Amino acid sequence: MGKGYVQVYTGNGKGKTTAALGLSVRAVCAGKNVFFGQFIKGMEYSELKCVNLLSNLTIEQFGRDCFIHNDPTKADIECAREGLERMREVLGKGDHDIVVLDELNIALLYKLFDLDEVINIIKNRAPHVEVIITGRYAPEEIIDMADLVTEMKEVKHYYTQGVMAREGIEK
Amino acid sequence: MGKGYVQVYTGNGKGKTTAALGLSVRAVCAGKNVFFGQFIKGMEYSELKCVNLLSNLTIEQFGRDCFIHNDPTKADIECAREGLERMREVLGKGDHDIVVLDELNIALLYKLFDLDEVINIIKNRAPHVEVIITGRYAPEEIIDMADLVTEMKEVKHYYTQGVMAREGIEK
Repeated sequence: MGKGYVQVYTGNGKGKTTAALGLSVRAVCAGKNVFFGQFIKGMEYSELKCVNLLSNLTIEQFGRDCFIHNDPTKADIECAREGLERMREVLGKGDHDIVVLDELNIALLYKLFDLDEVINIIKNRAPHVEVIITGRYAPEEIIDMADLVTEMKEVKHYYTQGVMAREGIEK
Repeated sequence: MGKGYVQVYTGNGKGKTTAALGLSVRAVCAGKNVFFGQFIKGMEYSELKCVNLLSNLTIEQFGRDCFIHNDPTKADIECAREGLERMREVLGKGDHDIVVLDELNIALLYKLFDLDEVINIIKNRAPHVEVIITGRYAPEEIIDMADLVTEMKEVKHYYTQGVMAREGIEK
């Protein structure tokens, strides 16, 4: 087994979680095992149904059924911390070839847990595990530790035309 | 059925085709039909195996088994033109909710077919079809006609560390 790298998808444009999902599905198709952990999110996204079609894909959510507005609640913090403990276990064990930490950067932005602790968990993972981190506002320390960083930049967005998130496209 | 939009994923960063794949899989999970057309590419990518797992996903390739170096050959041009005809049919018919034109921008960069013709085909599609266009160097006319444009910007890439494309991750 080769060394696993750390990939970061950040920026204000569309396609970060979606790229992580595409990467996960491609890997599953190649016979790999993927764990897709979603911080912040606890909503009924269509991608949750993927696990019925793709047996080597596991998705777990560590958020509530709404996004955080203003200050995070006690429940937001508890969900995220439980999620981090779960990710520590998954990353350490190494049963999965690819582990996605979806919206990790947003969890860090809201200070739901400690940046140093996260970096420690990622550094102490089973060495073959490829780590995919998504979310706007990736902190410098995450960029520094990453092997690959893509910034998704919004050039034009139809939200500004009043298009709402559509089932099967955005969610 | 709502109106379909045109989404473009361009830029020099990693994640364009991968985002289109993720979007496709999410849509299939939501019960939609997806056609994923790949220009330029005729290689054995892992995503081709997705069609065995996801019955509402069709992938067709309109390229040869190697990338274009320097000038395109006659075979490159023929493959691409056949592909464009196929896409005209698929986009016009409207049997698919989402149609991906993967690496269309690269096919345009190499002038494998005419930009005006492509724009015409997209404009004359069945109106509910959502179109996803990928590839570096999206021409201005494509950006202009798009409803959503994301630029994937390379911030850091492990290719510069000598990491080659890995099966199940990059291909």
